[in-house]
Amino acid sequence: MHYQPDDTIVALATAHGNAAIAVIRLSGPNAIEIVERSFYSRSLKQKKISTKNSHTVHFGIIIHNQQIIDEVLVTVFKAPNSYTSQNSVEVSCHGSVFIQQQLLQLFMGAGARHAEPGEFTMRAFLNGKLDLSQAEAVADLISSNSAISHQVAMQQMRGGFSSKIKLLRDNLISFASLIELELDFSEEDVEFANRTDLKDLVSKIISVIQKLIDSFEVGNVIKNGIPVAIVGKPNAGKSTLLNVLLEDDRAIVSEIPGTTRDTIEDEITIDGVLFRFIDTAGLRTTTDIVEQIGVNKAYDVIKKSAIIIYLFDVHEISSGDLKLEEKMIKEHIKDSQLVLVANKIDVENINDLKNEFCDFPEVIYISAKENLHIDLLKQKLVHLFDTRTVNATDTIVTNARHANSLKNAEIALRKVFEGLNNNITGELLATDIRYALEELGLITGQVTTDNLLESIFTKFCIGK
Amino acid sequence: MHYQPDDTIVALATAHGNAAIAVIRLSGPNAIEIVERSFYSRSLKQKKISTKNSHTVHFGIIIHNQQIIDEVLVTVFKAPNSYTSQNSVEVSCHGSVFIQQQLLQLFMGAGARHAEPGEFTMRAFLNGKLDLSQAEAVADLISSNSAISHQVAMQQMRGGFSSKIKLLRDNLISFASLIELELDFSEEDVEFANRTDLKDLVSKIISVIQKLIDSFEVGNVIKNGIPVAIVGKPNAGKSTLLNVLLEDDRAIVSEIPGTTRDTIEDEITIDGVLFRFIDTAGLRTTTDIVEQIGVNKAYDVIKKSAIIIYLFDVHEISSGDLKLEEKMIKEHIKDSQLVLVANKIDVENINDLKNEFCDFPEVIYISAKENLHIDLLKQKLVHLFDTRTVNATDTIVTNARHANSLKNAEIALRKVFEGLNNNITGELLATDIRYALEELGLITGQVTTDNLLESIFTKFCIGK
Repeated sequence: MHYQPDDTIVALATAHGNAAIAVIRLSGPNAIEIVERSFYSRSLKQKKISTKNSHTVHFGIIIHNQQIIDEVLVTVFKAPNSYTSQNSVEVSCHGSVFIQQQLLQLFMGAGARHAEPGEFTMRAFLNGKLDLSQAEAVADLISSNSAISHQVAMQQMRGGFSSKIKLLRDNLISFASLIELELDFSEEDVEFANRTDLKDLVSKIISVIQKLIDSFEVGNVIKNGIPVAIVGKPNAGKSTLLNVLLEDDRAIVSEIPGTTRDTIEDEITIDGVLFRFIDTAGLRTTTDIVEQIGVNKAYDVIKKSAIIIYLFDVHEISSGDLKLEEKMIKEHIKDSQLVLVANKIDVENINDLKNEFCDFPEVIYISAKENLHIDLLKQKLVHLFDTRTVNATDTIVTNARHANSLKNAEIALRKVFEGLNNNITGELLATDIRYALEELGLITGQVTTDNLLESIFTKFCIGK
Repeated sequence: MHYQPDDTIVALATAHGNAAIAVIRLSGPNAIEIVERSFYSRSLKQKKISTKNSHTVHFGIIIHNQQIIDEVLVTVFKAPNSYTSQNSVEVSCHGSVFIQQQLLQLFMGAGARHAEPGEFTMRAFLNGKLDLSQAEAVADLISSNSAISHQVAMQQMRGGFSSKIKLLRDNLISFASLIELELDFSEEDVEFANRTDLKDLVSKIISVIQKLIDSFEVGNVIKNGIPVAIVGKPNAGKSTLLNVLLEDDRAIVSEIPGTTRDTIEDEITIDGVLFRFIDTAGLRTTTDIVEQIGVNKAYDVIKKSAIIIYLFDVHEISSGDLKLEEKMIKEHIKDSQLVLVANKIDVENINDLKNEFCDFPEVIYISAKENLHIDLLKQKLVHLFDTRTVNATDTIVTNARHANSLKNAEIALRKVFEGLNNNITGELLATDIRYALEELGLITGQVTTDNLLESIFTKFCIGK
């Protein structure tokens, strides 16, 4: 890695492949000059974009070695009014992979360096346009694939989470400075920081942090999808159900041509909530779920799932069987929710069925093959999520790194709290407070290390 | 198809998939207003982009149902200064598939229609920004994947080919109008159009058209790649050779991360020339090329190829064998070029080999496995192309539709020429001239039909 912020960097900013247009982005001290050098008007007069206003767009051709590479639109952004805060240029060219490469090579030949992943956003961070958790939200926003994950990332990018952490940290800093002051006068045995007030504050901060840590469970689910296992005996119709769920979803997505290839087979977004179906192949090979339940693999699937759909063929299972199956599964789940789904129903005698399974009022009756009542099942899934989650406008931690720092801060603050109860010295208090401050600072990037930055930004896509 | 040019259309203009940024493009009377309606500054004040100058860029957020969909850059293009000649807007958003879809749906909900393939370019054509052959070159430019195909498409897009056709047509029109004038005075038996001058002109035009038609053979090869067959006995090393050629190529391409997935396994660009390797699996299953040559499939492969590489293992074939093989292959090719390549050479005794095959001074000695002298083979391939092709700055026809119209125009003009020799009536001359004019007009779109436009623009990508 070589993040030299004074290099001029260049990268393709749009997705790879042929398309109507592609955008190549440059940022750095020479960004404008590098493009200007080969940018001409139709009449082959050089275009002096360096003399133009920021945020203006210019049509022209890019020429290299007497050959026209493309007709392009060039947008000029002048420091500090750009994403990175540096001089920046966006070159919008015809979306041919060949042209993209020619332009990249031309600009690299003229002194630009190919950007590392996330390097544009890293510059935005280093120049104070975003703090670290906001920068991380940019990557989350790009990979968000449901209304809720999108909303949480957007809130984080716009600083909702940062301001909360900053507030905690600022409160703590004012007390920390009083404690540090005591240390300077340590021989005089003074107490500038009121211990009772400090205890109140620390206990308040701990409770906020605790809430944030708890939100990570939901946040993680929002970001990665709610894990759902479909289990059941062979031929209960598990694959058919999964297909009908996926196909319904695809029909919505494919209103806009070409997006289908971006959906992942085992993920479904229902009402803006992402569900991730976990492969239950392990259960499919057995003839009896009771028999199979002892197998480790099946255990794992069920343990990893927040929701377990037990699907059964109404013609193959009796109310008594169902009671046994439900009991066995429930013995092996902890916090997960179990949904019983009766498949292969016949509309004509649905009332008979309901009679038969009257001990299970929660059973959802469907026909996966006939696409019957699938909506009811979907509603149920969304409802189960709603009862688990908090409001998405609350601050939710979605990032494992943040959750980890919060946990470390909490441990340190609990030590402070105990220390205050035991009247320990200011020196020891200060050590733990400093540690808590550092962990909170790591979240927003007020405290940072090269390794941390590298590990965050290498996960970005190139061009961002 | 419903190409209503007064609709406001919208489409994703960049490639599909998650990326740093994506661009959504709108064109039509309400393009600016539709975006303006949900476009706000950070302080939630609505941004009146309709009052801004053309070619300016504005940062802000897109809000729908009280939810922020994204922070975006909005570029305003005011009629007629846009690609389509209509009011246009480009919205540059975070490249999340989810956000792309949200924005598309928002703009469609606000009255925009999803664009048909090529509809933006079609509007550019209908509004006189491009003629038809230039519009077609836009699609060629986007799919161009070698320096030469790129150059030819660029020349065509910038009007090189159009102006040539227009010149031919204009010359013909001036004469045609004189002939038409004669028809008006037909009872008076006058001759406004000098028959000798007309004969000169027609013969000149025919020779230009003939040259253009001939260029299509090269043009087609430039656009689709030069077909190359690698044939030879099993274990001659054909796959190894293909792999080593492809791998070399990939190493160059992959300087820029992520582009590798766009290369097609069987195509190689060497020195800017695209070679397309035709699968010779049919030959691979036999033990002897002579035996196999009778099989139709093998014939086809060889017939379709411009270059045939006959690869042989120096340890398995004698000079006498080679003579027989060469004779058999040559009997079955017409215009194709045969390249004899000796594989599995040993550097130590290459001179012994050259002695053994001294009757074949053109043989190229390589070791595919050791990646030895592959460059020599590549140079040979490029050289064979150079001798076949004309200069890429000449006007080259790459489009089968254009070639077809040129052929039809030529037939009509030959009739005119014969007619002039046989002193046929002005009326008959006029019919054939009109036909030739129409065919030439079809190329540039001065003459056009809905079906023609549809068949051209449906081949475009969406968003262009």
